Amino acid sequence: MFNSFGQYFRFTTFGESHGPGIGVVVDGVPAGLPLEVEELTTALLRRRPGQSIYTTSRKEEDSPEILSGWKNGITLGSPLTVWVKNKDVRSSDYDALEKLYRPSHADYTYQQKYGIRDAAGGGRASARETIGRVVAGVVAQKWIQQEYPVNVWGWVSSVGEISLPEDYIPKQWSDIESSPIRCPEAEISRKMEELILSAKEKGDTVGGCISGYIEGVPVGWGEPMYMKIQALLGYALLSIPAVKGIEFGSGFSGSQMKGSQHNDIFYTDDKGKIRTQTNHSGGIQGGITNGEPIVFRIAFKPVSTILSAQETVSLEGEKVEMKAKGRHDPCVLPRAVPIVEAMTWCVLADLRVLASQRFLVEKGNS
Amino acid sequence: MFNSFGQYFRFTTFGESHGPGIGVVVDGVPAGLPLEVEELTTALLRRRPGQSIYTTSRKEEDSPEILSGWKNGITLGSPLTVWVKNKDVRSSDYDALEKLYRPSHADYTYQQKYGIRDAAGGGRASARETIGRVVAGVVAQKWIQQEYPVNVWGWVSSVGEISLPEDYIPKQWSDIESSPIRCPEAEISRKMEELILSAKEKGDTVGGCISGYIEGVPVGWGEPMYMKIQALLGYALLSIPAVKGIEFGSGFSGSQMKGSQHNDIFYTDDKGKIRTQTNHSGGIQGGITNGEPIVFRIAFKPVSTILSAQETVSLEGEKVEMKAKGRHDPCVLPRAVPIVEAMTWCVLADLRVLASQRFLVEKGNS
Amino acid sequence: MFNSFGQYFRFTTFGESHGPGIGVVVDGVPAGLPLEVEELTTALLRRRPGQSIYTTSRKEEDSPEILSGWKNGITLGSPLTVWVKNKDVRSSDYDALEKLYRPSHADYTYQQKYGIRDAAGGGRASARETIGRVVAGVVAQKWIQQEYPVNVWGWVSSVGEISLPEDYIPKQWSDIESSPIRCPEAEISRKMEELILSAKEKGDTVGGCISGYIEGVPVGWGEPMYMKIQALLGYALLSIPAVKGIEFGSGFSGSQMKGSQHNDIFYTDDKGKIRTQTNHSGGIQGGITNGEPIVFRIAFKPVSTILSAQETVSLEGEKVEMKAKGRHDPCVLPRAVPIVEAMTWCVLADLRVLASQRFLVEKGNS
Amino acid sequence: MFNSFGQYFRFTTFGESHGPGIGVVVDGVPAGLPLEVEELTTALLRRRPGQSIYTTSRKEEDSPEILSGWKNGITLGSPLTVWVKNKDVRSSDYDALEKLYRPSHADYTYQQKYGIRDAAGGGRASARETIGRVVAGVVAQKWIQQEYPVNVWGWVSSVGEISLPEDYIPKQWSDIESSPIRCPEAEISRKMEELILSAKEKGDTVGGCISGYIEGVPVGWGEPMYMKIQALLGYALLSIPAVKGIEFGSGFSGSQMKGSQHNDIFYTDDKGKIRTQTNHSGGIQGGITNGEPIVFRIAFKPVSTILSAQETVSLEGEKVEMKAKGRHDPCVLPRAVPIVEAMTWCVLADLRVLASQRFLVEKGNS
Repeated sequence: MFNSFGQYFRFTTFGESHGPGIGVVVDGVPAGLPLEVEELTTALLRRRPGQSIYTTSRKEEDSPEILSGWKNGITLGSPLTVWVKNKDVRSSDYDALEKLYRPSHADYTYQQKYGIRDAAGGGRASARETIGRVVAGVVAQKWIQQEYPVNVWGWVSSVGEISLPEDYIPKQWSDIESSPIRCPEAEISRKMEELILSAKEKGDTVGGCISGYIEGVPVGWGEPMYMKIQALLGYALLSIPAVKGIEFGSGFSGSQMKGSQHNDIFYTDDKGKIRTQTNHSGGIQGGITNGEPIVFRIAFKPVSTILSAQETVSLEGEKVEMKAKGRHDPCVLPRAVPIVEAMTWCVLADLRVLASQRFLVEKGNS
Repeated sequence: MFNSFGQYFRFTTFGESHGPGIGVVVDGVPAGLPLEVEELTTALLRRRPGQSIYTTSRKEEDSPEILSGWKNGITLGSPLTVWVKNKDVRSSDYDALEKLYRPSHADYTYQQKYGIRDAAGGGRASARETIGRVVAGVVAQKWIQQEYPVNVWGWVSSVGEISLPEDYIPKQWSDIESSPIRCPEAEISRKMEELILSAKEKGDTVGGCISGYIEGVPVGWGEPMYMKIQALLGYALLSIPAVKGIEFGSGFSGSQMKGSQHNDIFYTDDKGKIRTQTNHSGGIQGGITNGEPIVFRIAFKPVSTILSAQETVSLEGEKVEMKAKGRHDPCVLPRAVPIVEAMTWCVLADLRVLASQRFLVEKGNS
Repeated sequence: MFNSFGQYFRFTTFGESHGPGIGVVVDGVPAGLPLEVEELTTALLRRRPGQSIYTTSRKEEDSPEILSGWKNGITLGSPLTVWVKNKDVRSSDYDALEKLYRPSHADYTYQQKYGIRDAAGGGRASARETIGRVVAGVVAQKWIQQEYPVNVWGWVSSVGEISLPEDYIPKQWSDIESSPIRCPEAEISRKMEELILSAKEKGDTVGGCISGYIEGVPVGWGEPMYMKIQALLGYALLSIPAVKGIEFGSGFSGSQMKGSQHNDIFYTDDKGKIRTQTNHSGGIQGGITNGEPIVFRIAFKPVSTILSAQETVSLEGEKVEMKAKGRHDPCVLPRAVPIVEAMTWCVLADLRVLASQRFLVEKGNS
Repeated sequence: MFNSFGQYFRFTTFGESHGPGIGVVVDGVPAGLPLEVEELTTALLRRRPGQSIYTTSRKEEDSPEILSGWKNGITLGSPLTVWVKNKDVRSSDYDALEKLYRPSHADYTYQQKYGIRDAAGGGRASARETIGRVVAGVVAQKWIQQEYPVNVWGWVSSVGEISLPEDYIPKQWSDIESSPIRCPEAEISRKMEELILSAKEKGDTVGGCISGYIEGVPVGWGEPMYMKIQALLGYALLSIPAVKGIEFGSGFSGSQMKGSQHNDIFYTDDKGKIRTQTNHSGGIQGGITNGEPIVFRIAFKPVSTILSAQETVSLEGEKVEMKAKGRHDPCVLPRAVPIVEAMTWCVLADLRVLASQRFLVEKGNS
């Protein structure tokens, strides 16, 4: 419940950053879905620490092991469990941190809530938990793509103040992975890289935004009241560590517009399909997909663990100065792209079940 | 499920805009909570249509009737049901709309999803559904305030391009209700009023932002993984019609900052309480409340039903020109404030249950 | 949650026995399902009090009113709400009961749990709450029967010590309704009627069993672990007031058998369908339907409110003698048959959603 | 969801009988609960195969390994994961079974549902899945017993036609474990042992009943409508493989009684506590605990896998004769006792959360 996501396609993550490993149980997976361990490995590589100089230097091979629900390249319909051992654990880096609260980190709230915390690597608060999300996302994606021509893309659209234009869409999807920080415009990417490296050198960190783009979702997904697709995506994406905001379509900018400017005018395209001329709605009307691409943008705060000196308080509330050690990301954005995509796939897998159920008894003009 | 909100404190809304009425069942209400019908009436007055020239002229007295769960001023512990009859129904205004899809409205997606739609008043897609949310919010608020010194405030922080400063907090809470559009700064409020009236005259509509502020929530509410307090609030608030974005604390602006700027430095105040010097985190760290005020901002798109001429397509996909009739809000922001507050209270009521459960077995320093 | 049943096809009941009325919200109903108020009225007639001398003399017309989710004979896909006003309320019958705890009634547990109880008619503990179940059952049945050749039958198989043979199946389904107490064997029915009347004359009550029979459910419904079909039916049927036991197939008798006797031998029938020679499994193997009829039997305790003198304690714990007034059933079995059927339909409607989802990716030999 | 149990204290099991192992994730465990691996080992020993000549000869050490949520003898508040490797796997025993459907086994229904089945050891349908339940039960028990003087006892009350009296309660709880088959009456136990051995010699199996007894639950646990304690226990216990029936208190026998006989008369004991003279209600009134012991009885069908020759059909539906190999229990009852107890603890842990929440605002006489 507290560690599970989804209602029909449901995954549960477990494991602490500096414990034996990280795992996930994915329930609701159909039988007979082809799945290779290599697919999981490849997906995990994209979120892996140590993949470039722009990320933490913690070295984890992140080799997934399938514990259940799978045999000879095929899912069995039983819960699929994947386990990734922690290897490069250096808990000693954290010894000094046990006596104080790192600013803007979950140290204080965990300690207050549980009376206990596993300081090493942040325990559950660590980004290592997201391994489970990425694994679940692979399965969700495979399941959906067997039936629907859906695709999900995420990219880094801003780092600090360096930003792509608000309505930017990549020219080619492959441009995203060409950039070490997953910004599809080479020039902008380079500026972002510089900014990250410059922050890193100062022991500082930097925030930014990720944009998401979902294409191919049929009209009619999402439920009109409390399972609006934007609410479900919002819930999913706001559960990613460091996310502080989300907007759909025109979002905050759209709130400055007039209705006459903002409305997406319908037209019928040359294939006879009803489309809209603009997409301020971000593919969603009344909580339900309208067949246009679903677009959103997510704000990540800068990583709170910085390596320069900071003031804070000890467990006893006394003023102390601290300087973090450990290996941390100067910017999580590049590694967060696959996590954003994975959570999006999981929302879609969950909605897919409802989408096929709430059909009308005698279908009208759809 | 599709029309229910909450897990422990759960409400279910029902009723169509132009059907017999709108209702809500609130489950999980304790026995013995004092509640008067007048309290519901007062709360509904704040979201009522026709309350000022800035809102729709539809006249609904919105007189709540308690159907169950209550006797002689006290709740019984059984489901509390409240029913509000629709009175000022003019379905004829909608006749012309049955043959076409209003731009950026849920007409098209509902028709595609259900093969049927109750065009009059938008059926379920109408804002009248939010009556149920406001009723549930009253109960949630009363329940929480019996034990916790919590308060929730919402105000209009922008209309179109007219905006309060990003980090603005009202000087006095009573200033909010002094403004007909619930903007606590008189000068700014007047500009917003002008903007709304000017849009209204042109048959146009205008969007804006609502800010939310929660004070008094104890440290430790929210669950660290998939029930982070920002994820639950995001889910709740993104389910309000016309909401297109949400941000917590520094939000999108914060994504442009460095970690060294953004981190909220801890200190111990003169009562010995651990506090933070700034509140970029918006009162939340690791998905859990840290005792500082929880702050958020929500973007509303402009109302899609405008009264000026627009192009669109008919049910058959043919290009047509339309001009909406009916009584609509030129700006939903003023009436949306109590809805934002109500959903916030309901999230808190739900979390309250968990908050009291996940305590550690032997409590440490909390 | 506490007053809701079902996950996908979910209904929520509300209302107290001696309050304004009883209602139900059914969520998850598809759009376009034909439904007439008369169908609800007819179904409620079967559970109605005062339908024969074997039931309570409380007179309720039980006229259902549809408050939402329906227009012109068709469901809208939005929550369907049905409301039945209480009419023949005589709370004064209950005045004396407010000061004591009726033996084996929920008086004591409610008082302890809620510190409050609506003594009149037992408040929520009254069988009037089952009106909502019957309404939900009508919708569930209609939805399922639009696609599947499923039928559900319940009948009274024992009253006191008068019992049909354990493996009895009615010769004709219409025989059930021919009996005023819904026992399909005329001779046995008469003996049961005599027993009920004899108990009634003495101010006493009598228990009994209801048998259930579901035909036409396809192979493969039910989930193998924690949504086994027997677990879901058990959960549903044990929630009916006065039910104290349930068994499936051979049930308790089967626990006395050897595996070699109990096993249901497979064979292929002349249409090439795999069947079993016996049905000790009651249509379920490993929690999943095997295509044979699902059979179960439910034990009801005798009604606890008897009209003869009984010893008990007052609210203060002092020994008192009581003699109940009010109008009560000498035997609930006849009126409980439609409730058993309704809950069964609701379980099937819920399972139907999953049944269509958990198919394998490439279907084998099914 | 399909493989999860519980709403607040929730566990999810995973793993196949002849795969790498069996695991469980327990979510909702508080931080700071003392827990030693030895406690898990001891609990698993009670359900372990090969513990006596009355059970399967499959030899599994069932050594539990804690993968997450635990450090140095204490739970962390994060999900607790326990993993037990499968060791004595002899899949070859099952080769012949892949081509046919064992009578009354889940072979046929799984094949039809999933189009695939892991014949070896029955895959998920194997009793090995219950390892996870036993582990969750240990945690649930420890958590509850930290605050409440609750205890749960199960014993074998019948094997085949050999039965303890219906209202039998053990004289001493320790008598249960003194018997190799967990029947607390030495004489009856011996007769049961003989019956099991005699069945085993013939390659046959035998069913029976387990009785359950819960003491110390406070008044007021359970929710009056759809979370009645008997419904929740029924749901939990009917999910155990081979269970075909359950009854509470007087159960099926009680259905033959008159109200005047069956009612449990209240009295005030010498400590001033309100009690009942009899306990036909089995500790439950209106779905809520009344402070008396909760008593129930569960029927298990005989194990379907017998070692003598049986007729059945092949995958193609052709008549074949089969003779099972593999190591199977002649009677599951002795090993099922700890599973019944574990599921009961888990229901209580789940209810405990609600029990503490639904208190009235101002408590009355409790």
